[in-house]
Amino acid sequence: MHPTSTLRVLLVVHGGAGVIVRDQHTPAHDAACRAGLTNALRAGHAVLRNSGTAVDAVEAAIVVLEDTPQFNAGRGSVFTHDGVNEMDASLMDGKSRAAGAIAGVTIVKNPIRAARAVMERSPHVFLSGRGAEQFARERDLELVDPAYFRTEAKWDALQGELAREAQGSANTGPPQLGTVGAVALDQTGNLAAGTSTGGMTNKRWNRIGDAPIIGAGTWADNAACAVSATGHGEFILRHAVAHDIHARMAYKGEAVGEAARDVIQNLETAGGAVGVIALDAHGNAALPFNTPGMYRGTITEDGNITVAIYGDE
Amino acid sequence: MHPTSTLRVLLVVHGGAGVIVRDQHTPAHDAACRAGLTNALRAGHAVLRNSGTAVDAVEAAIVVLEDTPQFNAGRGSVFTHDGVNEMDASLMDGKSRAAGAIAGVTIVKNPIRAARAVMERSPHVFLSGRGAEQFARERDLELVDPAYFRTEAKWDALQGELAREAQGSANTGPPQLGTVGAVALDQTGNLAAGTSTGGMTNKRWNRIGDAPIIGAGTWADNAACAVSATGHGEFILRHAVAHDIHARMAYKGEAVGEAARDVIQNLETAGGAVGVIALDAHGNAALPFNTPGMYRGTITEDGNITVAIYGDE
Repeated sequence: MHPTSTLRVLLVVHGGAGVIVRDQHTPAHDAACRAGLTNALRAGHAVLRNSGTAVDAVEAAIVVLEDTPQFNAGRGSVFTHDGVNEMDASLMDGKSRAAGAIAGVTIVKNPIRAARAVMERSPHVFLSGRGAEQFARERDLELVDPAYFRTEAKWDALQGELAREAQGSANTGPPQLGTVGAVALDQTGNLAAGTSTGGMTNKRWNRIGDAPIIGAGTWADNAACAVSATGHGEFILRHAVAHDIHARMAYKGEAVGEAARDVIQNLETAGGAVGVIALDAHGNAALPFNTPGMYRGTITEDGNITVAIYGDE
Repeated sequence: MHPTSTLRVLLVVHGGAGVIVRDQHTPAHDAACRAGLTNALRAGHAVLRNSGTAVDAVEAAIVVLEDTPQFNAGRGSVFTHDGVNEMDASLMDGKSRAAGAIAGVTIVKNPIRAARAVMERSPHVFLSGRGAEQFARERDLELVDPAYFRTEAKWDALQGELAREAQGSANTGPPQLGTVGAVALDQTGNLAAGTSTGGMTNKRWNRIGDAPIIGAGTWADNAACAVSATGHGEFILRHAVAHDIHARMAYKGEAVGEAARDVIQNLETAGGAVGVIALDAHGNAALPFNTPGMYRGTITEDGNITVAIYGDE
């Protein structure tokens, strides 16, 4: 993906990294994903042009991605082993290092809004399960019937996994992954980051991945960068990916592109399929991944949009 | 606390940091806490002397602390707003960066054992709530009736909080905190870290603190250090405390004592009441805290034990 402008990047989004290759995608799916990324970039950019905060822009972009059923977050989330859509999200404000996160919610229409409510309207950072849903209800967030999140594509993916398990055949492919995320820089120079996901197809035991973990899937600090990660969550957790990019910039003096590339390279060595989006306070963006593809896009201050899916774009 | 030996420290434990001052403690409580720390150090040291791994030693030490009702972990955990003991724990192996964590369990006798089972006997890093309990059952961990965890002291603390809330008086004191943790160095030079807690008295909405978060409450990497944090979990999460100590050592070349002190100082500036224990691969230990006291102790390779509670020890 080659930037078509040298102006500052104000917003970067992703819709997940993984085994994303051309011959497995219909033209309709490809187009719907590019439209979702574009709409998310436009929504966030409109916020920033109206002097909205980086937190506002991240929320606006992620709401669009959650509402796009092709991506694994909000509507279109993957199913757990028990056939439930169980979602995680987090948000961090680079100005104050305020943060909010939720895990395992099943009725909150836009999990990123719940993460923001935790950040701004609770004394806590991280709520989970039925308690997080009760909190969302008390804060008047939009709740929906769990059926709202269901898509046939993701249901079929679970059935495929269950059939494979029933036959006793090993899972030789990569885990079914996906996440959405956004990082933004506002007019006052503040950064923010957010991530939202349905997790991993066929996940069990109320598994929590990296998406709601501050320092793993999400990090923002004006002193260095804003980061959202995607891919095999267990590796992202064990390498504190988002904070590691921050630390390489803050303590080694690396630029955002170098720090993000080094971390992705380390993950590849460790066997983890991972991608990140990262943005520094000067509008320099990095979007490295070690997978065949990553749904991704950027928008510059003059509104120039670039979106891409495959590794050769 | 002045080390009485210049030999390598092999194991460090803590039983929580906070407003721990002499005139609020009976001699019996003081003695029971010191005995708990001492027993935990002896249990972990016995493992290490028998060529056990750092992971084995951390687990053995934390099991003793969980079983000591004075500390806020396992038996003696604090109560949630709804009168439940809801526990979190995590464990990390510095050799492989393997990690396991659980949040919100109510029937697992020793939560640290469940964290270890997640690390070694699941494809995941982090499980929560009823799913984590189901996992513990499938792995034949010891389950108990929730009444096992109840202590009258912690029940009375919740009643005090609820009465204060009912009167509408603001909570002017620090939150009721506490955690236990251990970091160890074994004969082969491997580090490990673990943390376990009942969380915060009167917590709501299935709040998750820093204790089960890899990179916040717990971190271990042979390349730098093993860390367990304690104190106001929301601050520890927002500063990725455990990974930040690692990063300062790995990227700035700081010694373990300097890195731990710098992070604690930053937390104090930010208003967070926090303590950490940290150990490097050479047996250098650091135990800084910015609270009036921290239950803590060390044992050297020759078995020399030092325990302390108050800030002036």
